[in-house]
Amino acid sequence: MKLTAKTEIIKEFIGIADGIMITELRLHIEEDVVRFLCVDTANVALASAVLPIDAFTEHTFEPCIMAIDVTKFKACFGYGGKEISITRDSVESNMIVVESGGYRSTQTLLHDGTVKKDPNMPALELPGIVELQEKEFSNTIKTISAESDKLRFIIADNKFKIKTENEGPDNTERELLEDEVLHIRGDGNSMFSKDYLIGMTRQLSGDIKVHIGIDHPIIIDFMFAGGHGVGKYLLAPRIET
Amino acid sequence: MKLTAKTEIIKEFIGIADGIMITELRLHIEEDVVRFLCVDTANVALASAVLPIDAFTEHTFEPCIMAIDVTKFKACFGYGGKEISITRDSVESNMIVVESGGYRSTQTLLHDGTVKKDPNMPALELPGIVELQEKEFSNTIKTISAESDKLRFIIADNKFKIKTENEGPDNTERELLEDEVLHIRGDGNSMFSKDYLIGMTRQLSGDIKVHIGIDHPIIIDFMFAGGHGVGKYLLAPRIET
Amino acid sequence: MKLTAKTEIIKEFIGIADGIMITELRLHIEEDVVRFLCVDTANVALASAVLPIDAFTEHTFEPCIMAIDVTKFKACFGYGGKEISITRDSVESNMIVVESGGYRSTQTLLHDGTVKKDPNMPALELPGIVELQEKEFSNTIKTISAESDKLRFIIADNKFKIKTENEGPDNTERELLEDEVLHIRGDGNSMFSKDYLIGMTRQLSGDIKVHIGIDHPIIIDFMFAGGHGVGKYLLAPRIET
Repeated sequence: MKLTAKTEIIKEFIGIADGIMITELRLHIEEDVVRFLCVDTANVALASAVLPIDAFTEHTFEPCIMAIDVTKFKACFGYGGKEISITRDSVESNMIVVESGGYRSTQTLLHDGTVKKDPNMPALELPGIVELQEKEFSNTIKTISAESDKLRFIIADNKFKIKTENEGPDNTERELLEDEVLHIRGDGNSMFSKDYLIGMTRQLSGDIKVHIGIDHPIIIDFMFAGGHGVGKYLLAPRIET
Repeated sequence: MKLTAKTEIIKEFIGIADGIMITELRLHIEEDVVRFLCVDTANVALASAVLPIDAFTEHTFEPCIMAIDVTKFKACFGYGGKEISITRDSVESNMIVVESGGYRSTQTLLHDGTVKKDPNMPALELPGIVELQEKEFSNTIKTISAESDKLRFIIADNKFKIKTENEGPDNTERELLEDEVLHIRGDGNSMFSKDYLIGMTRQLSGDIKVHIGIDHPIIIDFMFAGGHGVGKYLLAPRIET
Repeated sequence: MKLTAKTEIIKEFIGIADGIMITELRLHIEEDVVRFLCVDTANVALASAVLPIDAFTEHTFEPCIMAIDVTKFKACFGYGGKEISITRDSVESNMIVVESGGYRSTQTLLHDGTVKKDPNMPALELPGIVELQEKEFSNTIKTISAESDKLRFIIADNKFKIKTENEGPDNTERELLEDEVLHIRGDGNSMFSKDYLIGMTRQLSGDIKVHIGIDHPIIIDFMFAGGHGVGKYLLAPRIET
């Protein structure tokens, strides 16, 4: 097996799992796509990424599964190469060689049985949807998250509001009006932990589609790798008790 | 009450109190000015700032007093707005709403009785005076403060000297000659804690006027908000015993 | 004694000792050169630097020895002056005055008897030699050192290889081919602690000459002060047991 792609594309792809602090990642190398679907240790956040095989400049392989140590793998993003190649002698081999920028890194694959099972992506119909530029979304979360551990997202009356959820009256909010988003409809009102949100937003770019329900998970749909790849985050809500 | 001004102006104004680590600040909103006069917990440093009401682009109010939580208030400097608005429903209300850059922050005011009483600014006639660019003053303090906890300021023979005050002979000094300052006269020789000085110098800009006596406080007079506001720091000396 | 030189030159000269964490440095001020030869506390790394006297813009002195506190001395690199002057009243004086950028620092010299004796630079004939740009060398060490505490250097078949030395099969290497180095010959294969290497590489610039043996020290020859000064590092190997 040999897969080669631009460093930036591999970095964004693996970064999506890194955004929810996945350290052991099972990659599915299939006929048409390379993809993963993973859940964090606390079972609070899911990440999915699908990268078409034609995003790779070189791809010779039999379909296979391989589980990588994300921390070790990420080192290759510092090698300064324009491309990254991943070579595996056979689908039985437990080693890969990662090459980039003149560096050559030999990495043992993880034993598939020891890596957390792929979750099921729940089929949810969430009533509130807002499309907007990732910058508006990420900057708002980053700015107000200093003031609270929990953030509430509200879609109502064609406005999208993100607010801190402190005990007591002191809170901060930002309301995005209809003309500050690309598309908005329906209703939603749910609360989430800021730490997960901040990790996720670091991986986003361009336009994103956010789905919100009433005390339901948030789903963020986004593109990566210059529109070639399709990514999705799902984060469970925190429910007031 | 509604007060609106450029973010930069509000930031400089509140920053003057922050420079001596004031966390609870009593603002006096008067007919012609918004001002404060405060002293740090250790009663070592005083800060005063007076901002004319016409520095505000919007000002509708009855004169009142309000005590703010500086740490909470400072969050609005990160909202990215060009202006900051502060709204209070009435002089009895214990809440303000701070708005900037699309963000809206609701903040409970502090109970006036729990905030440290405004100090009296002592009337001192200090014999040594030097006017100079803030950069010369601040950079010298920053540079040599790494070498000592205490700094001595000396005005003598039309020269202004700042020196470390270590035990033993190893010391560093910088002497500013008559042509490196704007104006100098009289004599002074006093020693101060570097930590306060560093906090204060972060808030200064432009030309400043420094008053020094013999083992007496230092007074720093300065302008802020592009020359609209008048600020003053007073710092008690450390006396060799 | 008065010695004056460009700040950058003095900074590079003293930096060579700082690169192996020397805190007490014995300077030899001789007829034609100012030089030092020092060994770190653990006796693992040697540093040598020789700066011709004509690198100084001002030099009036009797030959002498003086031992400086490197940490204190380094403060003068922050004074912002283009030149640094070192004045000593006589060869018996235990004080120097360091002047730069308007600052004047008085420093007590260390008692010569308390400073670690100058080591002997061992006369080694190492069989492998590679000349290359410091950037190639330093960047490779910096990049892969995150993955291991020990790095192995190999010269063989006209190639220069730097690799991590982890237990187990996971390792990263970079191989510099004949056309990526300036000159290469012989054979070498030795392993070193990354911490020393990183400290040393921070002080290098331009082209360097690296000597490697089989489980022998590494020697790095380099120029500094724009080609005026001659520097040398020697680092003992770590030997697998």
